[in-house]
Amino acid sequence: MSETVAEVGEFRLIERFTRHFATTPAVVLGPGDDAAVVTAPDGRVVACTDMLVEGNHFRRDWCSAADVGHKAAAANLADIAAMGARPTALLAAVAAPQDLPAEWLEGLASGLAAEAAAVGAAVIGGDTTRGELLTVTVTALGDLEGRDPVLRSGAKPGDVLALAGRIGWAAGGLNVLSRGFRSPGALVGAYRRPQPPYPAGRDAALMGARAMIDVSDGLLADVGHIADDSGVAIDVDTAALPVPEAMRNAAEALGADARGWLLTGGEDHALAAVFPPDVLLPEGWRRIGTVSEGAGVTVDGHRWTGPTGWDHFAKD
Amino acid sequence: MSETVAEVGEFRLIERFTRHFATTPAVVLGPGDDAAVVTAPDGRVVACTDMLVEGNHFRRDWCSAADVGHKAAAANLADIAAMGARPTALLAAVAAPQDLPAEWLEGLASGLAAEAAAVGAAVIGGDTTRGELLTVTVTALGDLEGRDPVLRSGAKPGDVLALAGRIGWAAGGLNVLSRGFRSPGALVGAYRRPQPPYPAGRDAALMGARAMIDVSDGLLADVGHIADDSGVAIDVDTAALPVPEAMRNAAEALGADARGWLLTGGEDHALAAVFPPDVLLPEGWRRIGTVSEGAGVTVDGHRWTGPTGWDHFAKD
Repeated sequence: MSETVAEVGEFRLIERFTRHFATTPAVVLGPGDDAAVVTAPDGRVVACTDMLVEGNHFRRDWCSAADVGHKAAAANLADIAAMGARPTALLAAVAAPQDLPAEWLEGLASGLAAEAAAVGAAVIGGDTTRGELLTVTVTALGDLEGRDPVLRSGAKPGDVLALAGRIGWAAGGLNVLSRGFRSPGALVGAYRRPQPPYPAGRDAALMGARAMIDVSDGLLADVGHIADDSGVAIDVDTAALPVPEAMRNAAEALGADARGWLLTGGEDHALAAVFPPDVLLPEGWRRIGTVSEGAGVTVDGHRWTGPTGWDHFAKD
Repeated sequence: MSETVAEVGEFRLIERFTRHFATTPAVVLGPGDDAAVVTAPDGRVVACTDMLVEGNHFRRDWCSAADVGHKAAAANLADIAAMGARPTALLAAVAAPQDLPAEWLEGLASGLAAEAAAVGAAVIGGDTTRGELLTVTVTALGDLEGRDPVLRSGAKPGDVLALAGRIGWAAGGLNVLSRGFRSPGALVGAYRRPQPPYPAGRDAALMGARAMIDVSDGLLADVGHIADDSGVAIDVDTAALPVPEAMRNAAEALGADARGWLLTGGEDHALAAVFPPDVLLPEGWRRIGTVSEGAGVTVDGHRWTGPTGWDHFAKD
């Protein structure tokens, strides 16, 4: 029988949680003191935070503890990448029910650490506490390496909309899981462990991206944030967004709309960016639309009438 | 009737949440993009995170929304102060039930902002999401101003243990509230809004403190962390910790042990530090014990047989 977090007790639990966290040269002081210390060579630090709640953002019967760690880390690391910054560190706070197996927390820690390590970052601190609803909050820090942050507000008429990374896969995977299936693995795996195109964020900043966003609420919703904040209209060209065959097959089998997954599904943590019209797009980026004067987002020149994305407080 | 968070919807809610956040010269980019940016003039950034869960760390019938904001901010800002650093910024993530009044979230935001402003810091970002159990995670960032961080591990035999700030008041307040009373106000107010001695952390670092900790789990437990991490024994001298009259009266009325509140109550976020023996203690610090060779914490030379502090996973 696995011990529960209540049986292990807080101090031993913290030890079991933090021993999964490797260090990097940027870590001046890791977990174990009142706070951690990480280098900020640029003299500025980029920071964001994101909370995952069991039942709303993950289910323990759908995702392993390590999956949840990967997912929570990815959501934050992608936000740092979307500023054109290099992620340096994560902090993780967990509220755990007393009967949670302690090894679940260890799995979470290993997932957080592995996802951080994939971008050269480290988990430097955290908090574990009791809460009857399993909740994970991750904070990510990053370094701008001397560049300006790439905001949502810099798009100009005439610019080009581009995408890096995959979209629709996580939404498909969630759809598969919520119908009680466990395959196709390509979709389910994408939902469990998103693969944000981290280096594409920094590359876009280096190539002069004028606006950028992490696609976490769905392509149309997030491109809409760029349109709103920049005071421009953006048209998404679906000819540039073909539905992959595996996705189409899965959607057909489920009677679902693969194009809806592509356009409104979040959680793959793709990056959407706007570049000047004459840009040579960096590797991994493809042109998917255009920016013009006006307001709002259109799809192939028409108003989109389906849902645009995810409102975390919407009724079920 | 006040609108609920579900009625307001996520995007308008974020707007209502973040409009309470003032800025400071250190804020390069505030809320509203994928991540925020704050200066880190030292080239390093101090970071910590702490999670408060309704029912375990606060109750809505005991604390106003603003109180919870003050409390959540204070817990983190005190950790930054305990490193000898100057707090610069907070991030706040909130999971809120759908029926939470939107104005509760606004009250939380105002409390976070006010507590941050009291130390010259700003709330730079956050996340609001749905969760059936109201949960607040705050992350704090700070600047070391060129100094080394003050760890828990630097105490040496012959050193002096000192305290800044109040202890026992929040524990008394919690005891009062949990018995169904609302006064005395000095205790209840201390529980609702701790008053950490923020500047004392930086002052201690400047005066050569060798070890420091935020007293959040109780004096004996937290001094125990210094003893363990430094490989020394620490004796707490209760003659230096007289029970204030208001606290003694309240404890007597409740049949409670005021000395227990002082020695094992957390959440006032006092600072405990160890200084070299010949130090002239900075203002606000008082000598409360001694460091010697050995291990563990004693009280007036004797082993403490009562509880030492708070284990967040302990059974009720």
